[in-house]
Amino acid sequence: MVLSSIAAEQADAYLAFAAELADEVRPIALSYFRTAVEFTAKSDDSPVTVADRLIEARLRERISARYPSHGIYGEEMGVKQGDAFTWVIDPIDGTKSFITGFPLFGTLIGLTCDRQPFCGLIDIPATGERWIGRPGLTTYGGVRSRTRDCRRVADARFYTTSPDTFADADRAPFERLSNAAKMRRFGGDCYIYGLLASGHCDLILETGLQPYDYMALVPILEAAGGRITDWDGAPLSVESSGHVLASATPALHDEALAIIRG
Amino acid sequence: MVLSSIAAEQADAYLAFAAELADEVRPIALSYFRTAVEFTAKSDDSPVTVADRLIEARLRERISARYPSHGIYGEEMGVKQGDAFTWVIDPIDGTKSFITGFPLFGTLIGLTCDRQPFCGLIDIPATGERWIGRPGLTTYGGVRSRTRDCRRVADARFYTTSPDTFADADRAPFERLSNAAKMRRFGGDCYIYGLLASGHCDLILETGLQPYDYMALVPILEAAGGRITDWDGAPLSVESSGHVLASATPALHDEALAIIRG
Repeated sequence: MVLSSIAAEQADAYLAFAAELADEVRPIALSYFRTAVEFTAKSDDSPVTVADRLIEARLRERISARYPSHGIYGEEMGVKQGDAFTWVIDPIDGTKSFITGFPLFGTLIGLTCDRQPFCGLIDIPATGERWIGRPGLTTYGGVRSRTRDCRRVADARFYTTSPDTFADADRAPFERLSNAAKMRRFGGDCYIYGLLASGHCDLILETGLQPYDYMALVPILEAAGGRITDWDGAPLSVESSGHVLASATPALHDEALAIIRG
Repeated sequence: MVLSSIAAEQADAYLAFAAELADEVRPIALSYFRTAVEFTAKSDDSPVTVADRLIEARLRERISARYPSHGIYGEEMGVKQGDAFTWVIDPIDGTKSFITGFPLFGTLIGLTCDRQPFCGLIDIPATGERWIGRPGLTTYGGVRSRTRDCRRVADARFYTTSPDTFADADRAPFERLSNAAKMRRFGGDCYIYGLLASGHCDLILETGLQPYDYMALVPILEAAGGRITDWDGAPLSVESSGHVLASATPALHDEALAIIRG
């Protein structure tokens, strides 16, 4: 995407709104976090569902009031068709973290333009951290954020949320790539993409992701100097298969793609 | 260990000192956290080693000044023989978290009496959290902390830091137990033992741990209502094999031990 100053200005206005939204729903997430223990006698999922639904409902209400013509694609309440812009939202990314008191779950707010990722925000309620990205600029806590200049898989710090997501044909590429890296680590959900955008890890491979899990991440990683595509190197869209590779640099990404192909 | 009021008072005095120590070294850990990117061109380990060594040196200096007769057992600088009391310390538990910007690494300070775990402290510098335990009382942020009343593996939320630690004969028990649980999750190092003590997860299985990784955890988990032993159900000591099982309740622990035995 070629960045004009008009596009940047427009993106910043949308991101300012996204930040308002994140500020507003953060207390909702925190009000349910680590209270699950009182709710889970019958089902582990119910308190999460309550928090998810409340947050998504609030986000949808606010987006619809502010930008009535925009589409909305949310985890819990489906798709609302709109014009060229669609907000892609995940009220709580990292459900299992959320219900086990692990503080690195996040709220994801992305905006696509003509079905392409345009702006994104990762908010981590429990730690108070936030990454924001749009063409040309990624920030963490308001300060410009950059990936690490890591160009070889052998030097890369690899992360994935859980090895359990790699079943059948996905398993071998995962083992090949993660074992070729300098270090492999587990856990983190959206948080590890923030770490990548800030230069703390270098390589992430995941599968089974949904558009609301990854669309907000794309502008954040790309403007930080990284790359994020599907396992074939194709750009991510709402039609992607859910196979996601994210890398600190284009060179690292190319080598990782070659290892995935085997 | 039978708890007399004298023992509790003595433990509280030691823990107040441990808390002073943790307050003092927390800024050292944070001053190196997320700066690793500037140090790791040659080796991933050096920045950690610097932080580890500085913290351990400070802890040893302060302990030796305050309790010159006590022993010290640290990760980086070995064993100093002493009287009935030994401080068992891990300056940075979660090395790989630390060097990848993952904020759940911790400083562990334990105190053994006649080689038995007596008091323990888990400090998480990046999130500002702290668990403290001694016979009869575990606290989190100064408030009494309790495990969840989970008595069946089928209801348990299982955590381990990484599946990669389970090699050879350790693999099958790990797969049996973690797959019998309601949910299995990865990541966390000492942090997940804090989550267990606070009732957010229920079951942890690990291997390859060193005394400075687990001795501080024992008083925290036991006084919170949990159990922590080796994989045979034997109490943990500095001579243990490094196979650690921690559970929210004695009933859950017994069932987990049976599953481990196969």
